[in-house]
Amino acid sequence: MTITITVFERAFDEGRGLARDMRVRWALEEVGQTYEVRPVPWEGFREAAHLARNPFGQIPTYEEGDLTLFESGAIVFHVAQKFPGLLPADADARARAIMWMFAAIGAVEPPIVDRDIVEYAERDRDWQGERFAMVDARIRGRLSELAASLADKPWLDGDFSAADIIMVHVLRRLEGGPILAEFPSLTAYIARAEARPAYQRAFAAQLALWEANKG
Amino acid sequence: MTITITVFERAFDEGRGLARDMRVRWALEEVGQTYEVRPVPWEGFREAAHLARNPFGQIPTYEEGDLTLFESGAIVFHVAQKFPGLLPADADARARAIMWMFAAIGAVEPPIVDRDIVEYAERDRDWQGERFAMVDARIRGRLSELAASLADKPWLDGDFSAADIIMVHVLRRLEGGPILAEFPSLTAYIARAEARPAYQRAFAAQLALWEANKG
Repeated sequence: MTITITVFERAFDEGRGLARDMRVRWALEEVGQTYEVRPVPWEGFREAAHLARNPFGQIPTYEEGDLTLFESGAIVFHVAQKFPGLLPADADARARAIMWMFAAIGAVEPPIVDRDIVEYAERDRDWQGERFAMVDARIRGRLSELAASLADKPWLDGDFSAADIIMVHVLRRLEGGPILAEFPSLTAYIARAEARPAYQRAFAAQLALWEANKG
Repeated sequence: MTITITVFERAFDEGRGLARDMRVRWALEEVGQTYEVRPVPWEGFREAAHLARNPFGQIPTYEEGDLTLFESGAIVFHVAQKFPGLLPADADARARAIMWMFAAIGAVEPPIVDRDIVEYAERDRDWQGERFAMVDARIRGRLSELAASLADKPWLDGDFSAADIIMVHVLRRLEGGPILAEFPSLTAYIARAEARPAYQRAFAAQLALWEANKG
């Protein structure tokens, strides 16, 4: 069964692995599944062929036989429940891992994405500084809570799981900014994840595509 | 097995059913499970007992034996996979229903929540109007895409599912505002959902708690 995912033909982050296809690549590498890549050019996101895969016109999407999925969290969940290695067998532990997937996307990611909106969409507004202060306070609140919950554990809940893929990738969007360094347990958590061979293979694959297509 | 959920002791929305416990109440009503309610007062959200249930200090939470969950999407998913009625049996259809749960929370809800931030946290800023214009454009984009995908179907994908619970509740947060009425297929979708007996029982239960506690 061939798995095909869509990715940016030329990613906005220039090979830093911040686009959400990285989550799917990483999950597939963790479970040892090969996949094909369909790069979507900027002008292709609003074309019917892509909107049929994702009505919101975003990447990544996932095709496997007759099944087409969008939303990185849903794709990673599908991969994790189809192939062994990314969700605990115990029912309660499995429910908690899925909970952390939703928490990463529903509680941690929104203010982090909002920070990018402030940085790029509001760069010409004279109130950009006030907005940065407000959104950074929200991010710091969430990261404080997350760090308290992670404490000295290596992963969010027991063994490494699909939830750590999503959470680490959500946090990586803050790399290079002023906030993440205030939370050494979270930077160590990211570093642990980035040291995984599956992460490194996924990162190398998206970087190779950027190098090939950057022109 | 007793199920216990946490809810606002005195909800910010004054009984309109906009707090996220409504999603869990509704899901439990759809699958015919009774539950107990633990109201949390405003001063209780930062207490250790509640942070042990949810490190982000929010409601709802869900307790069932030794299992404690937070995040409404994760709780509704847990209810839907534990009890029949809210997820399709067919594997591909099930994956798509779960996809729509993630899409509601990851793609549709963030700009809608951001609108509340503009309305309340930014009410004293002289740039509030500019922010409303920007966030409303994002919301209209998402709702246009959602309406195109829903087309003339009654529910997001096949039969009513856990995804419709989350999506309808996300959209309800726009009720009474200027945007939703521009999308008649979405207001009809919400009305179809609100006509379900399980929705009405859940709504009545949260309203009764508000009436009892409003003081």
